[in-house]
Amino acid sequence: MMFNNLTNKKIILASKSPRRQELLKGLGLSFKIKTKEINEDFPNSIDNSDVAAFLAKKKAESFALSNDEIIITSDTTVLLTNRILNKPQNTEEALRMLQRLSGKTHEVCTGVCIKSIEKEIIFSEFTSVTFKLLSLDEIEYYIKHFQPYDKAGSYGIQEWIGFIGVEKIEGCYYNVMGLPISKLYQKLLEF
Amino acid sequence: MMFNNLTNKKIILASKSPRRQELLKGLGLSFKIKTKEINEDFPNSIDNSDVAAFLAKKKAESFALSNDEIIITSDTTVLLTNRILNKPQNTEEALRMLQRLSGKTHEVCTGVCIKSIEKEIIFSEFTSVTFKLLSLDEIEYYIKHFQPYDKAGSYGIQEWIGFIGVEKIEGCYYNVMGLPISKLYQKLLEF
Repeated sequence: MMFNNLTNKKIILASKSPRRQELLKGLGLSFKIKTKEINEDFPNSIDNSDVAAFLAKKKAESFALSNDEIIITSDTTVLLTNRILNKPQNTEEALRMLQRLSGKTHEVCTGVCIKSIEKEIIFSEFTSVTFKLLSLDEIEYYIKHFQPYDKAGSYGIQEWIGFIGVEKIEGCYYNVMGLPISKLYQKLLEF
Repeated sequence: MMFNNLTNKKIILASKSPRRQELLKGLGLSFKIKTKEINEDFPNSIDNSDVAAFLAKKKAESFALSNDEIIITSDTTVLLTNRILNKPQNTEEALRMLQRLSGKTHEVCTGVCIKSIEKEIIFSEFTSVTFKLLSLDEIEYYIKHFQPYDKAGSYGIQEWIGFIGVEKIEGCYYNVMGLPISKLYQKLLEF
């Protein structure tokens, strides 16, 4: 109803993340999922706060689109004092990452690209997330029960550790889950 | 596992809200639901920012507890320039409330009471929520499809209007859903 500009367009979300799919569904928009593995390398010259937008654009440009398709791609990075925390490779790395986030404020950046054959827009949204001091017990409990190996920064805000550990956020909550949904809505209305 | 202090205690959540039940479940705590209708009047002398805590305490004290029971009660208020926005009685009131929230920052306050026969603690948590300018179309669409008549301030942050309309929050997101879950966790550990 809201997206008169998108009538006759086929929206594609290029993400396997059930959280992103749920968020986009929440807009009341019909869409399909198409995913593709891309090489997530980026040039060293890019500032860490631009990496998410760079990767979103790279993902979008890896798809061959037909006339009526609009693709949405995104990438989320976790930045602590401007250094990127990736997905942890193992328990020790997850533990170390969560110990670094404990008692501190970090930034979550989601970069988004919306692309058709005619145009492309790219934007980033930043949210500050503050963890309380996490005990070793809490960190170990979380890693054991939630296996956050697919998560940048080793945590999901919508999981147990987010419930017990996140004291406050500043910015868009859904951005931390993987899509800055109110901004995406606005950008889609204007696309 | 985390709540050694609560072993042999029966936790009761006094809330019908599925959101609050889901949040408390997220802590990994077993609990039962017991609810009771109380008169939600409060003295005029109370500051609006203390009303949620007052009502949480009033609810908790309306239950007769046994030795091993701990009850959790809560109340959430929406404050715009320190005036309380209640649940809307009808479409017109919901529309007017959302028009007042549009383009502005308001406060959501959840007051919580944790009570056993031995002790009682009460606390409040405040979160700032900023709405973008909402169009009349958006407000009408939301009211029609989501019927927010059971919601203080006429909106649920986890619903469509929260997705498209909330530009940013400052504080605890779950507090806006109805329970300041990280603070509640901490208070339960210390209870």
